[in-house]
Amino acid sequence: MAPLKVGIIGVGRIGRCHCASIASVPTKAKITMICDIYEPALLEVQGMYNIEHITKDPMELIKSADVEAVIICSPTDQHADQIIACAEAGKYIFAEKPISLALDIIDRVDAKVKETNALCFVAFQRRFDPHFMRLKKAVTDGEAGDIRTVHITSRDPNPPPVAYVKVSGGLHNDMAVHDFDMARHIIGSEVEEVYCKGSCKVNPEIGEAGDIDTSLVMLTFENGVVATVDNCRQASYGYDQRVEVFGSKGMVQLNNAYGNNCVVSNSAAVQRDLPFSFFMDRYADAYRNEMIAFVDVCASADKKSPVGVSDGRAAYLIGKAAKQSMETGKPVKISEVC
Amino acid sequence: MAPLKVGIIGVGRIGRCHCASIASVPTKAKITMICDIYEPALLEVQGMYNIEHITKDPMELIKSADVEAVIICSPTDQHADQIIACAEAGKYIFAEKPISLALDIIDRVDAKVKETNALCFVAFQRRFDPHFMRLKKAVTDGEAGDIRTVHITSRDPNPPPVAYVKVSGGLHNDMAVHDFDMARHIIGSEVEEVYCKGSCKVNPEIGEAGDIDTSLVMLTFENGVVATVDNCRQASYGYDQRVEVFGSKGMVQLNNAYGNNCVVSNSAAVQRDLPFSFFMDRYADAYRNEMIAFVDVCASADKKSPVGVSDGRAAYLIGKAAKQSMETGKPVKISEVC
Amino acid sequence: MAPLKVGIIGVGRIGRCHCASIASVPTKAKITMICDIYEPALLEVQGMYNIEHITKDPMELIKSADVEAVIICSPTDQHADQIIACAEAGKYIFAEKPISLALDIIDRVDAKVKETNALCFVAFQRRFDPHFMRLKKAVTDGEAGDIRTVHITSRDPNPPPVAYVKVSGGLHNDMAVHDFDMARHIIGSEVEEVYCKGSCKVNPEIGEAGDIDTSLVMLTFENGVVATVDNCRQASYGYDQRVEVFGSKGMVQLNNAYGNNCVVSNSAAVQRDLPFSFFMDRYADAYRNEMIAFVDVCASADKKSPVGVSDGRAAYLIGKAAKQSMETGKPVKISEVC
Amino acid sequence: MAPLKVGIIGVGRIGRCHCASIASVPTKAKITMICDIYEPALLEVQGMYNIEHITKDPMELIKSADVEAVIICSPTDQHADQIIACAEAGKYIFAEKPISLALDIIDRVDAKVKETNALCFVAFQRRFDPHFMRLKKAVTDGEAGDIRTVHITSRDPNPPPVAYVKVSGGLHNDMAVHDFDMARHIIGSEVEEVYCKGSCKVNPEIGEAGDIDTSLVMLTFENGVVATVDNCRQASYGYDQRVEVFGSKGMVQLNNAYGNNCVVSNSAAVQRDLPFSFFMDRYADAYRNEMIAFVDVCASADKKSPVGVSDGRAAYLIGKAAKQSMETGKPVKISEVC
Repeated sequence: MAPLKVGIIGVGRIGRCHCASIASVPTKAKITMICDIYEPALLEVQGMYNIEHITKDPMELIKSADVEAVIICSPTDQHADQIIACAEAGKYIFAEKPISLALDIIDRVDAKVKETNALCFVAFQRRFDPHFMRLKKAVTDGEAGDIRTVHITSRDPNPPPVAYVKVSGGLHNDMAVHDFDMARHIIGSEVEEVYCKGSCKVNPEIGEAGDIDTSLVMLTFENGVVATVDNCRQASYGYDQRVEVFGSKGMVQLNNAYGNNCVVSNSAAVQRDLPFSFFMDRYADAYRNEMIAFVDVCASADKKSPVGVSDGRAAYLIGKAAKQSMETGKPVKISEVC
Repeated sequence: MAPLKVGIIGVGRIGRCHCASIASVPTKAKITMICDIYEPALLEVQGMYNIEHITKDPMELIKSADVEAVIICSPTDQHADQIIACAEAGKYIFAEKPISLALDIIDRVDAKVKETNALCFVAFQRRFDPHFMRLKKAVTDGEAGDIRTVHITSRDPNPPPVAYVKVSGGLHNDMAVHDFDMARHIIGSEVEEVYCKGSCKVNPEIGEAGDIDTSLVMLTFENGVVATVDNCRQASYGYDQRVEVFGSKGMVQLNNAYGNNCVVSNSAAVQRDLPFSFFMDRYADAYRNEMIAFVDVCASADKKSPVGVSDGRAAYLIGKAAKQSMETGKPVKISEVC
Repeated sequence: MAPLKVGIIGVGRIGRCHCASIASVPTKAKITMICDIYEPALLEVQGMYNIEHITKDPMELIKSADVEAVIICSPTDQHADQIIACAEAGKYIFAEKPISLALDIIDRVDAKVKETNALCFVAFQRRFDPHFMRLKKAVTDGEAGDIRTVHITSRDPNPPPVAYVKVSGGLHNDMAVHDFDMARHIIGSEVEEVYCKGSCKVNPEIGEAGDIDTSLVMLTFENGVVATVDNCRQASYGYDQRVEVFGSKGMVQLNNAYGNNCVVSNSAAVQRDLPFSFFMDRYADAYRNEMIAFVDVCASADKKSPVGVSDGRAAYLIGKAAKQSMETGKPVKISEVC
Repeated sequence: MAPLKVGIIGVGRIGRCHCASIASVPTKAKITMICDIYEPALLEVQGMYNIEHITKDPMELIKSADVEAVIICSPTDQHADQIIACAEAGKYIFAEKPISLALDIIDRVDAKVKETNALCFVAFQRRFDPHFMRLKKAVTDGEAGDIRTVHITSRDPNPPPVAYVKVSGGLHNDMAVHDFDMARHIIGSEVEEVYCKGSCKVNPEIGEAGDIDTSLVMLTFENGVVATVDNCRQASYGYDQRVEVFGSKGMVQLNNAYGNNCVVSNSAAVQRDLPFSFFMDRYADAYRNEMIAFVDVCASADKKSPVGVSDGRAAYLIGKAAKQSMETGKPVKISEVC
């Protein structure tokens, strides 16, 4: 089978990461076109990967006969239109999240993807991380038995700039959304009710911008499982990404990932270096795996994406309910926010 | 200084544990009298520790001139009366928890202890466990900085008999009460609001007896800290007692305690034996330390108990609010239940 | 059965440790007499444990009709004569190691014990440590399969005073002897050949006193297993006591023991407190267990000590061969040194 | 700077690994020519990486004007001639180890490289593994203080085919050579004396082929450090690659690397999956890093290889001494074998 012809919209940090992943599987896929409004980036990446076509117009890329699959790494406010254009043009779609910060737009994208029966892969990369995959497999294989409780911890090393916070859609949409997706993915059920306490403990400017930096969410699922999601924009010790699944047969814990396994014992302590502190280091394998999974699903018979627009929508709704709970001080049903 | 003359009411499992602790510090304390309604136990323990006086009547022990300090290990429904009698008799008091399952009785005991200025030490032994003490010291020393979130996990290896469940006062009073006390102890603030999801996932008979076996509680403290307490009556892998304190400077985690440090690597896994599965093994040091702490405070100048009736009362109220939240589906303020 | 009547010669640090162990099993044993040349110690310990008889004369204790079992904690140069006197007097014997620093004396003790069929328990307390016992059980149960290699690490937190070093019999006799015994105990075979590199890296005064402070020994056993014993008089991070057994089915590792299980993550490292730094803390359970094992074997039908004079002799010979290897630069057979 | 023009001799498993590494740094290097006697492999790899030139003749590649640097992944018996040809042709050289199984040939290569002042990088990839690099940095930064003892464990998951064993040069040359190099690299001194016990415990056919499968080597360095190297051709639990450096200030331990950080607690044990069991998984980062290090040194001003022919020679001599010690039962000086 000829390599999949891939076009990439946006060759910033995450776009280049996807370029490298595609380049690492030359027999499976080939970057045929890239798009960016910033010409130096376009030329640089073209040179690195010997790419035939470049353009500043996303629609040119989407409509190109030399592009079978489109990887959308554009700014958030362009995601929805580009997904819809791809669906209409019959292209395979890989979309960075979030699809949108507005529910009606997400619903419109969802409808279009369903209508056109498009293959749309939404970028929840953690589902393709080897650690999370092992956790998920343990749960699927019954190592935990019937799940009783799940705890997810997700803390960033440092808060983003306040300017970013302002356009991020808020902590629940921007950061916790990955954890809400993971909770659904692990538990295999839909959230029924959300209770949340949020506050601004890291940086008061984040509060002034109308957001929070610290959040504790309790999720009750339709199948009776109760989960917590603990988020903070700042953790002194690095990128903290852990999960604990407790069930009738046992407990499965996913611990942090480290850049090395050295332990130093000295006169003060027995210690090791901090876990990864940058998400692209922590999730390097996950980003590569998700891209290969996308390429593979494009080549598959059923073209059925393992993670789609409806997953993005579900995670979005949990965040919306969390925000409403935090503001009202009361538990909020998902059915109240959609 | 002459050894403290100690009388012990009830020489069952926990009473004998306290006997052994007293016997291990012969220069500090001496058991002068024991009381139990079951004569063979009385005689057996008398022989083991060469104890001068025995009685079947708790009041005789409480009033004895040969007893300076009374350790109350009687059934729960006798605790309150015996504490009050000790307070009136001017004895130092060590009382197993709970003080009572009824708030008005707890309030009466509290009032009497205050009125008589009695030294009353309530048996929250975890505060004297070396692991929890190290955690508390880390927090006090500022190793975590300003606390943001606390997570307490407390799971038993196996549920108690249903007959016990019926008289236990319920999971929140019988089991979670230790965790509620620990949360207050670590965070150094009072609980303002409680939200709880409880269910019966281990044994339906526990549900039929009107109790739950699985509970997840979210506590909001007056100082803004949010904490979770995760309890289950059954954990396949043993006695699960962990705490995580997350703050501005770092994170302090207390992990489980194990009977040995051997790791076996074979063709299937890298593994170790399960953590302690019996609370008296897990907390052997804690029980001994708390008894020595009691003896020491009796010999101190200020006679100020490190943990008293008001601590028992505060933990009781959190449990009461948790139950009400679980039943109503709404967050409950502590001020609503007292 | 009436409690075993125990006499203790020497109530210094280790003697008092044994007193506490005996006092903790009042139904099994009772201290009836103690001996020490230092009267204040005698009186203090008598008062603590309410002991009937005291004496300054070891032979009076050994011959007393009120003593069935003798615990010998006297200075090393008295061990041999007291063991022999006990054997002749028909007493059960618990002897602190070493039996002697001279092979001919050890041989004489060995002969007397065999001749009188005496129960003589030699104090290799590590064999009764829960961690080492779990390791031994793993090996016995076949978890490692056929043993290929064993590594023992044994490092002290700090070197003893040079004055002590001078009378200690040297690092191999004083310190490594426990490890040589453990190697034999685990491997279940006798050492055939010893190769050793020793040096003085911690304190030159130890070298000037004719001893070493750092040693690496390679032991070849009759059954073909090869083992290393790594000793150092000083480790900045505390008392380092580890074993690794590697075999056809797997590997069993005994790691260090810690006073608490707290982990602190801060901006510099993920760390925990150092392991125990004092041997009486690290081996608290081992000391208690070995004393109970002694009391139990005295009460058993066959009176067969689990660890005897021949074990002490075998460990002594390994040390002697190690020293000779170090001095000659050549491997030394055990058959060359006895 | 234009990308380095790289030619690769041999596109089997390790050759393709190097291809992928080169392809991942398109701005730094470019594969311009590959050589293999097996045409389908040549064509397949040419297609994957869009390579301009192919040949079946190594000398054509070495002499090509389109090749600046040569990566030698041919069979061992061609290494020496190809290194010499590259040196004479003025090419940068990356050579898989071993340089040769004969000392006189190694010496000839060494002389030629020195004479031509060639850049010759010998493939001890572990020096470029992030875990070993962290260990080395800890030692260099003084975290261990003055080194006293080093222990290296290196066990394979499974023995190679006996047919391979016969041409491998023996365990010490084929397997332990990486550990001997690492010992020199960490300790920063040369080996003076070697003592070794070897045996055949895994597969008797390996013994019949004249080799061993289990080895324990004690190395004494010129600077007084003593090290052990423990090798076995089979470990039930996977690829076991550990190092412990003990010194005056502390201990640095490198533990095994795992494919995931999940811990499963069930009713039997607390366990995790086995470490990596394939060296190309375990050392994936190391292989990539060493290739980038080679490319970088080719572009550097001083063209000074971080690991060269003299390192290969030193490791070879340690293996030769180990074999002689094992056969004679005596310690062997390096000066006796060269």
